[in-house]
Amino acid sequence: MSLIYHLDGELVERAEATVHVDDRGFRYGDAAFETCRAYGGTVFEWDRHLDRLGATCETLGMAEAVPDDLKARVDETLAANDLGDAYVRVSISRGVQPGKLTPSVEVDPTVVVYVKSLSRGGVDGDPVWDGSATVETVDTRRIPDAAVPVDAKTHNYLNGILARLELRGSTAEEVVMRDTDGFLAEGATSNLFFVDDGTLKTPAPGTILPGITRRLVVELADSVGVAVETGRYRQADLREADEAFLTNTTWELRPIGRADGAVVGGGAITNRLRTAYDELVEARCYR
Amino acid sequence: MSLIYHLDGELVERAEATVHVDDRGFRYGDAAFETCRAYGGTVFEWDRHLDRLGATCETLGMAEAVPDDLKARVDETLAANDLGDAYVRVSISRGVQPGKLTPSVEVDPTVVVYVKSLSRGGVDGDPVWDGSATVETVDTRRIPDAAVPVDAKTHNYLNGILARLELRGSTAEEVVMRDTDGFLAEGATSNLFFVDDGTLKTPAPGTILPGITRRLVVELADSVGVAVETGRYRQADLREADEAFLTNTTWELRPIGRADGAVVGGGAITNRLRTAYDELVEARCYR
Repeated sequence: MSLIYHLDGELVERAEATVHVDDRGFRYGDAAFETCRAYGGTVFEWDRHLDRLGATCETLGMAEAVPDDLKARVDETLAANDLGDAYVRVSISRGVQPGKLTPSVEVDPTVVVYVKSLSRGGVDGDPVWDGSATVETVDTRRIPDAAVPVDAKTHNYLNGILARLELRGSTAEEVVMRDTDGFLAEGATSNLFFVDDGTLKTPAPGTILPGITRRLVVELADSVGVAVETGRYRQADLREADEAFLTNTTWELRPIGRADGAVVGGGAITNRLRTAYDELVEARCYR
Repeated sequence: MSLIYHLDGELVERAEATVHVDDRGFRYGDAAFETCRAYGGTVFEWDRHLDRLGATCETLGMAEAVPDDLKARVDETLAANDLGDAYVRVSISRGVQPGKLTPSVEVDPTVVVYVKSLSRGGVDGDPVWDGSATVETVDTRRIPDAAVPVDAKTHNYLNGILARLELRGSTAEEVVMRDTDGFLAEGATSNLFFVDDGTLKTPAPGTILPGITRRLVVELADSVGVAVETGRYRQADLREADEAFLTNTTWELRPIGRADGAVVGGGAITNRLRTAYDELVEARCYR
């Protein structure tokens, strides 16, 4: 079945979902987005995604671009595709404006809801990934906050794409990017966690996109009695970790099998947190 | 008259020029571009623009995305619009690919040629700008080379857009961005020159997009006997300069009237270089 997207207030066949070449989303990547996950028809952590989308739009000087009925558009799109377990992406671009780089104050945004089918989540679910992840530290450094605010989730994604291009010819699927000072930051589409002597460690905010799954994992660790530390870490800290995993909305928690050639893998704490996450999804979305 | 663009090998009415919402140019700003200027039907410095476009595509891992007949597409677009003096933008995006961030090796690029009318250039021409530019140093720092190669000209333009957003409420039209070490880098869409005690100074490559007009101005300065120095400069160096100007393909050389409130202005060297530039355009394109 071909998919139906939601574009500027209308449901449209995916094949018909286009934007103008003068749309600033195309010309400049001048757009905000969120990737969400629906479980059993419920969009998980919608409020947090909506908050972050609003914050990104505010950073981009278009706070008013988020439509009031955005959640209804998402729900309508899921229903039109008869999808309960799904990937949901919401994009808001600044739309077409006169041909100048400086944005006009008046915005007629382009709003897109993308969906596609995913496996079931929760206690009886299957991860969308196939096995643990192999990661490699790359040369491309995370764009610093002083250049583009790190907590803005935008269509300017070349930093991560250039990082991923360094993996061509390798079996690694995700990168580890360092900040410009050489400390561990994050993957191209994921946050990074590792376990050292029973403590769960993750790079501190400031050089990372603070992921919603990352935040949930920190909260879950707290609730199951796992100590959490945020800080600045080196490449060797990951390679020598007892356990390690990546997080993002789609992957949830994905163990790191190998980091820069070293075997790391998941373990007891990773499993405890995965179970806690599945139970949270189950409780919130499937019951 | 409505404009005609060139999209994926076809001339199309501007209103019909669209790309798919799954085009990576829209999703990620995953695209290369060049802004050129046609004078009397001749695209000025086409070979240098084509070289840089090829280099950007190579950086993006899609060296083969530049179509062999790109120049013919540009000429065809100018002819279809009956334009001799024109702005010409060429964009090459990675096109639609399966929904993963890591680019596929196989690329079916989206190629767009945009045009619009500009004033005549050369000896009898009029600048496209209206008066000298007021510039302001902003907090947003130029993305460092380690994060995204500075010589790649891509659709990831939020760094410059965020810089320009800092000018909201000000009369300044262009920003001065510094690198992450605090040295002068460039404008959002322009390179920076200033004159100090008879020497023309401009920030060295490494933290700037090395503009084609910038390179021409350095060559012209050499040919008219003006000493040129490239280096690392501070905000005060610009504010206290004897003359200053911005360069880009569309503006050519545009004097800086005020920098951070200080009156700077053009002057004898700026005028000499502007005349030399006009003569070069006249000789290459109008005779």
